[in-house]
Amino acid sequence: MSRVRVFIASSLDGFIAGPNDELDWLPTHDDAEDTFTPFMKEIGALLMGRRTYDVVCGFDTPWHYGETPVLVASSRPVEPKVPTVRGVSGDIHTVVAAAREAASARDVYIDGGALIRAALDANLVDELVVTMIPMILGAGRPLFAGVADRHALELLSSRPIGAGMVQLVYKPASAE
Amino acid sequence: MSRVRVFIASSLDGFIAGPNDELDWLPTHDDAEDTFTPFMKEIGALLMGRRTYDVVCGFDTPWHYGETPVLVASSRPVEPKVPTVRGVSGDIHTVVAAAREAASARDVYIDGGALIRAALDANLVDELVVTMIPMILGAGRPLFAGVADRHALELLSSRPIGAGMVQLVYKPASAE
Repeated sequence: MSRVRVFIASSLDGFIAGPNDELDWLPTHDDAEDTFTPFMKEIGALLMGRRTYDVVCGFDTPWHYGETPVLVASSRPVEPKVPTVRGVSGDIHTVVAAAREAASARDVYIDGGALIRAALDANLVDELVVTMIPMILGAGRPLFAGVADRHALELLSSRPIGAGMVQLVYKPASAE
Repeated sequence: MSRVRVFIASSLDGFIAGPNDELDWLPTHDDAEDTFTPFMKEIGALLMGRRTYDVVCGFDTPWHYGETPVLVASSRPVEPKVPTVRGVSGDIHTVVAAAREAASARDVYIDGGALIRAALDANLVDELVVTMIPMILGAGRPLFAGVADRHALELLSSRPIGAGMVQLVYKPASAE
């Protein structure tokens, strides 16, 4: 069965973006090992939060996700930026099930703070890949703060990947 | 000149204690490498926040800091739990200078969220040793969130130390 995986960068103080969605504090990819491309090779579908989708649509760069289906969880209509995008609505179990189906045997990549927190609290996350950025922001959009429950994790690996970043891989203790 | 160093455990979401100062989520020391004892050998004085001191005084365990002088930053009188404790008051520059003097040539260990944030914003921190605990708390007392400024860091080292913990060592980019 496909796994549900988080792949995200966090400041040392636990933020994924500044108070106004700033991402200018992220190191440029040129300075670091590319861990995203090999990760994406294992992904059959993305499940993305609405706010993250809106931020991604504002990027000047080319679409990051190739031909991989991207399901945007939103109660409002979603305007697809590329043909592989579609909206999906419902509770966290429903949208994760839709993403699993779209991924067929491959993994689901879940992205966006609110969606990640909801999936964690529903015990639907199998793996967390958190890239710790060498930056203290002080304020911003939290990655995990706000989950309803405590979540004990199991450390699977940790390694520096360049530009001062450390990639931490965890499995929630609740995951099978 | 002695360095000002932080040595602290953080949940993956950036908290040093739960909403009611809970520390029950910290792994027991028996499961992990003891990195505290070698760290303490380099310390000439502790500078501790008032709230941290009150929490430490509530512990049932023996005093953690041996004969090392402990300066408790507080505008209110400090009742010493052991003879090596004394109160110190004033702005962050004043209390850090007092701790440096007490440390003579050795390092200053600064402990407590509010004090660490104030020292960071005053560019008085030389090294941060952050032990990342495999736990998402969701809410609690933040370690760094609330600093007035962004702080870019330089990664000095990262290594797993057992019980799922990863010890990350950083130098603030502003430090000499």
